[in-house]
Amino acid sequence: MANITKKVSWTSRGDDAVAGEETPLLNGSEEVRYTRQLSGVGGMFHIGRLSTVDLEEDVTSDEDSPKGRPNEIPHNEKLLSLKFESLDYDNSENQLFLEEERRMSYMGFRCLEISRWVICGLIGFLTGLIACCIDIAVENLAGVKYFVVKENIEKFTEAGGLSISLILWAVLNSSFVMVGAITVAFIEPIAAGSGIPQIKCYLNGVKVPRVVRLKTLVVKVFGVICSVAGGLAVGKEGPMIHSGAVVAAGVSQGRSTSLKKDFKIFEYFRRDTEKRDFVSAGAAAGVSAAFGAPVGGVLFSLEEGASFWNQMLTWRIFFASMISTFTLNFFLSIYNKKPGDLSSPGLINFGRFESDSVAYNLYEIPLFIVMGAIGGLLGALFNKLNYWLTIFRIRYVHRPCLQVMEAMLVAAVTATVSFVMIYTSNDCQPLGPDQSEEYPLQLFCADGEYNSMASAFFNTPERSVRNLFHNPAGSYNWETLGVFTVTYFFLACWTYGLAVSAGVFIPSLLIGAAWGRLFGILLATITSSGSIWADPGKYALIGAAAQLGGIVRMTLSLTVIMVEATGNVTYGLPIMLVLMTAKIVGDYFVEGLYDIHIKLQSVPFLHWDAPATSHWLTAREVMGAPVTCFKRLEKVGTIVDVLSNTSTNHNGFPVVASMSVSDEPGKICGLILRSQLIVLLKHKVFVELARSRLTHRKLQLKDFRDAYPRFPPIQSIHVSQDERECVMDLSEFMNPTPYTVPQETSLPRVFKLFRALGLRHLVVVDHENRVVGLVTRKDLARYHLGKHGLEELQLAQT
Amino acid sequence: MANITKKVSWTSRGDDAVAGEETPLLNGSEEVRYTRQLSGVGGMFHIGRLSTVDLEEDVTSDEDSPKGRPNEIPHNEKLLSLKFESLDYDNSENQLFLEEERRMSYMGFRCLEISRWVICGLIGFLTGLIACCIDIAVENLAGVKYFVVKENIEKFTEAGGLSISLILWAVLNSSFVMVGAITVAFIEPIAAGSGIPQIKCYLNGVKVPRVVRLKTLVVKVFGVICSVAGGLAVGKEGPMIHSGAVVAAGVSQGRSTSLKKDFKIFEYFRRDTEKRDFVSAGAAAGVSAAFGAPVGGVLFSLEEGASFWNQMLTWRIFFASMISTFTLNFFLSIYNKKPGDLSSPGLINFGRFESDSVAYNLYEIPLFIVMGAIGGLLGALFNKLNYWLTIFRIRYVHRPCLQVMEAMLVAAVTATVSFVMIYTSNDCQPLGPDQSEEYPLQLFCADGEYNSMASAFFNTPERSVRNLFHNPAGSYNWETLGVFTVTYFFLACWTYGLAVSAGVFIPSLLIGAAWGRLFGILLATITSSGSIWADPGKYALIGAAAQLGGIVRMTLSLTVIMVEATGNVTYGLPIMLVLMTAKIVGDYFVEGLYDIHIKLQSVPFLHWDAPATSHWLTAREVMGAPVTCFKRLEKVGTIVDVLSNTSTNHNGFPVVASMSVSDEPGKICGLILRSQLIVLLKHKVFVELARSRLTHRKLQLKDFRDAYPRFPPIQSIHVSQDERECVMDLSEFMNPTPYTVPQETSLPRVFKLFRALGLRHLVVVDHENRVVGLVTRKDLARYHLGKHGLEELQLAQT
Repeated sequence: MANITKKVSWTSRGDDAVAGEETPLLNGSEEVRYTRQLSGVGGMFHIGRLSTVDLEEDVTSDEDSPKGRPNEIPHNEKLLSLKFESLDYDNSENQLFLEEERRMSYMGFRCLEISRWVICGLIGFLTGLIACCIDIAVENLAGVKYFVVKENIEKFTEAGGLSISLILWAVLNSSFVMVGAITVAFIEPIAAGSGIPQIKCYLNGVKVPRVVRLKTLVVKVFGVICSVAGGLAVGKEGPMIHSGAVVAAGVSQGRSTSLKKDFKIFEYFRRDTEKRDFVSAGAAAGVSAAFGAPVGGVLFSLEEGASFWNQMLTWRIFFASMISTFTLNFFLSIYNKKPGDLSSPGLINFGRFESDSVAYNLYEIPLFIVMGAIGGLLGALFNKLNYWLTIFRIRYVHRPCLQVMEAMLVAAVTATVSFVMIYTSNDCQPLGPDQSEEYPLQLFCADGEYNSMASAFFNTPERSVRNLFHNPAGSYNWETLGVFTVTYFFLACWTYGLAVSAGVFIPSLLIGAAWGRLFGILLATITSSGSIWADPGKYALIGAAAQLGGIVRMTLSLTVIMVEATGNVTYGLPIMLVLMTAKIVGDYFVEGLYDIHIKLQSVPFLHWDAPATSHWLTAREVMGAPVTCFKRLEKVGTIVDVLSNTSTNHNGFPVVASMSVSDEPGKICGLILRSQLIVLLKHKVFVELARSRLTHRKLQLKDFRDAYPRFPPIQSIHVSQDERECVMDLSEFMNPTPYTVPQETSLPRVFKLFRALGLRHLVVVDHENRVVGLVTRKDLARYHLGKHGLEELQLAQT
Repeated sequence: MANITKKVSWTSRGDDAVAGEETPLLNGSEEVRYTRQLSGVGGMFHIGRLSTVDLEEDVTSDEDSPKGRPNEIPHNEKLLSLKFESLDYDNSENQLFLEEERRMSYMGFRCLEISRWVICGLIGFLTGLIACCIDIAVENLAGVKYFVVKENIEKFTEAGGLSISLILWAVLNSSFVMVGAITVAFIEPIAAGSGIPQIKCYLNGVKVPRVVRLKTLVVKVFGVICSVAGGLAVGKEGPMIHSGAVVAAGVSQGRSTSLKKDFKIFEYFRRDTEKRDFVSAGAAAGVSAAFGAPVGGVLFSLEEGASFWNQMLTWRIFFASMISTFTLNFFLSIYNKKPGDLSSPGLINFGRFESDSVAYNLYEIPLFIVMGAIGGLLGALFNKLNYWLTIFRIRYVHRPCLQVMEAMLVAAVTATVSFVMIYTSNDCQPLGPDQSEEYPLQLFCADGEYNSMASAFFNTPERSVRNLFHNPAGSYNWETLGVFTVTYFFLACWTYGLAVSAGVFIPSLLIGAAWGRLFGILLATITSSGSIWADPGKYALIGAAAQLGGIVRMTLSLTVIMVEATGNVTYGLPIMLVLMTAKIVGDYFVEGLYDIHIKLQSVPFLHWDAPATSHWLTAREVMGAPVTCFKRLEKVGTIVDVLSNTSTNHNGFPVVASMSVSDEPGKICGLILRSQLIVLLKHKVFVELARSRLTHRKLQLKDFRDAYPRFPPIQSIHVSQDERECVMDLSEFMNPTPYTVPQETSLPRVFKLFRALGLRHLVVVDHENRVVGLVTRKDLARYHLGKHGLEELQLAQT
């Protein structure tokens, strides 16, 4: 039951508008919410409506939310940050835009369409190339490192003084990680982590600052090489998704703002709508390169991002993914001296599960479901631990040098723990003829044997996963697997969220593969019958899926990714079942890892649907009011004042028809964006100037595109006192047909419109078409289903 | 360049309304369009706007369209039929609905969500079961038939008098087909064909009459068994998609209107929104069962239908697909005496391509692309031939008995051609030890040999495809394959569109596999080098994909379906490339087969985007005007008269606020549907009666649900002369917040809103919020890109 139980009757239309300045009735949280509303700048008019019903409503719903001063807790999942802006996914169909579209011939549109395909091809190609570079760099660096350490250990095993080996290993790891962490923490902190939460936000429509810049890409790629080579419990796959997205954002714009280089191509695509579409292609290409899963990539982009499914866009995304896998395979085949062999998969190589006639049987299905539940539980534990750790980090480890030190500490501890594990392990396996190890690790074992613990720890995580999947039955003791699972679980949990660029996919798979294999071994011991239970690799695969599903909570895309990465559709059905179970069980306790981190950043993330019990709320309750509006012909001084007001920082302004009485709300006739106004001010498009100068060049869409995406701040634009008295005609530049809803529209209906069209501003009007409010992303993201029904988040300027 | 070059200036608002009765200026096609507008029923008011600009526009755009009398050509791709209604995908959020939603607790919503999952499970289960029945029935019937014929041929080969065998075969085939065709043609003609075009339309939002009824399902299933057993060049897979959709529409409603049985469950889901969502799950389950491709099924549903992508819905669709494959596999495993072996795929069994280390090489990619182009060309040819054939059928073969005779003729010809082919073939292959044939066919060959032509013709098409994929190199002569390709191509083309229930997937695959294998053999002959070219099965697979892609023009979903059906992701990349090429090449000549048939039915199908050059058009030009509106308090007589007017048959009516002057357009305050008015009239919800009767039961949402989906026609509702004078209060039942757009909104913007939200009616308002027009599906579907730019289709009452 929603805790907002007051029923708003249909007949109270609330047109008895009250001027918005008086807010003495508002309590703490309301103040926060209303700080962004401007009070009384000359020449503008406020359209206020704060009826008693609303105030009571707000008081009621505030009982659940904490009343503390939000600025003291910068990251809190009960807050929504106001610093994140939305993308303008909805085209501003102003006169300039329509004129351009109308001028364009059918062939023009065809050319644009072809350009889009070319860009997607380029995105795929470059993403594949980057993946290839990362792969080769990591393989070589890690190879050298393990070779040095192994040689050293073998030397000192006989000579004594193994502590020197340990120190060597720890120092090597820490140095790699230090370099990576310094780059990330000091140069571009947004490059930390896998970048998947940030890309999820971007695809959701949130403009995360600096997330698709070239600098981020460079730091990301360099950082991931360092952290994987540094032996952290991380994967090199997650960052590929972010890299693909940056590549897409760069290529599609035909220029680099960082490098100050404009190629004068693809100018048509310089707006948020097109850019976001290309970024989804980039993310898909990244997934595709990372896991050799083109279809999985497309599904990832769709599952995480696009609310509006468009067939042509999907095909382009698919094309980018395809080219990306293709490029990676092609270059890797050359690197591996087998040029032209394209059948190898992506960055990750799970090896192929050869399909038997009977791969699994009906009575194994319940076992798989049990494994899914275990995965869900362990995933929830992982997420909860990481949540607490992240809170701790936000409070105490927020200075860059501390972050670097923590990363180095984790690297040293990882090396030490691994060393101790390998040293104390007595799981020595004979080196059989069917040995799949590339470098058999004899470490502390008799001749002709290899250390099974080392094959799990003394390797890049990808290789360890492959070993767990494919090594024949009996390659691991159950003690080894148990100890390994526990150790690696905590290491991976500690590692995620460090100031290094790294992914969580592979560590999750590794944890899962370890306990999955353990599960298989125990099963074989209990039943003590042969054949069907004999293959623990199968259980390793299922365990890996369960653990990963329990942590990240994706289902459809993850199923396809796993199927494509293992190159076998036979296990499709069990993998689906396991992922579903893991998700259901995990969701019962805590959200997915990415969602947790998105919430901790207070990002106004819009989910797929409005909360189920939100039919109580109408646009009138959720909208921001009063709204700062402009007239069609507005004084420059007024516009500058509004834009300069740092306490509000509005980004969209309804344009209303001029009226006789200035206190009455105006009829909506358009919507104009801050960025558009900035460009107009910069070019001084004032009515008076246009009259005086005959040679006045008409402002074109090109001028807006050139300024995109880094529109200058209002402070950088000088407007003289004389110019302040001029008038700007907004008619030509505003969007004359913004979407509007009446005040009585229910929240789910508003939400659906907002989400389906990717809106940034939705104007709320009364029955006379007068502007009464404005709904933005934050107004919708505020409501969520908590433990006690519908809860409202606070807005804060963090 | 759009051929509508007249620019509508921004300032002409066209508020100079003209009453809509005078239409003498309109030419032929306009009459057709305006016949649905009502002229002068007392008590209502018209809001007309037919400015000169519009009329000129219409005249201009009509120059390209034929001026003939549309009723003489009932099926024409230049027409849009008015007989198809849209689904109400947008919820009517009226007071009753909101009250119900607000009454519902959070647990209530959880229960609903669980019900949805249960329903999807049921849909999957039943669809799988049906697929299983079809499979077993077809296998047995076809087995018996082929056994009888084979025995007979072998008997008469020695004794002479083979013409008796031929007659036996032809008669057997014709009898099966006759039974199937009679059922389809006389009982339920909508069950003809694969049903995929109909399901595409349904998912697109078009209510195709009788398409999801139980009777259709029964006829479909029975029909497909007959036609496959009758040896036609058809597959049993396409109809599964339709069957799944019918199952979904039935199960989700918790009752059967045909059987007059109401289980009193799932009542909440009795509306178009929910039903359509379930139908997409059903279609996916059908694909999943047919091809053993759960992910492919989900993608099919998305690619063909859902414009709004919702994560939870997608997961449910995925679940239904999963259960469907699972059920089918489970029952088939029992039938095949290997209970519990779930690793076998769906209805179709392509056999597994075992992955080699080098499956294909870089230099084969151009070859694959060439094959894709060939597939596109052949597909276009197939579609064009079938298009002409369909036109012919529409004109001359529209009586059921003629249709049955044509089907029988095709069956007889198929048998005769097959017989002659086998008889004249001299392609006898030795019966090797690695023979994969289940029933080696010696027909007319020496002992120890089998007839290779017979292994292609004397089999169900599925088996023939499998043979072409997997038989070792040298199993077929190139002459055999060439002749077979040509023959089967024309047979399949002739067969598609007969009044039998059958699919086109398998015949397409078979044609493609045949020429693909031929391509492989020729390649091996030309290069005359060994190893890599040695496997013609690979080329058969690529050819099959190319041919199917060239005919149906799906890419993403088809790639996944092919990959899942072959159980091997290695060929994913080449299959994608091939399908893309086939689509691009094919689209150059003619549309996909399903699209052709949809167009011939004059269905108002909405594509993904508005035509590229349609920015010229605004809502003002496309909307229907004048609009029949109702007042909040409307006289019963007026409502009955409007609803009874057969010449208009409107389905949605804006409700406007009462005004002082009755000629002025009213301010929009809601939207009410014909179906809602019918229920109100049936229950006599009149203001006067409510006053007089104290015990008057309040109308509930349940009453609307009970009447759904077969609302009685207005003629069946008796309204006395006294009651005609009563007044109905529509406030509680209308949707108070319909989506509206201003008149200046461009067509692409209107289109996007319409498509993203699945609307049925979109009200166009002026700046005073007064109703000036109504946009429906037909108004948008009318515009399409033809050879000479933007073209406008005519509307007709066919």
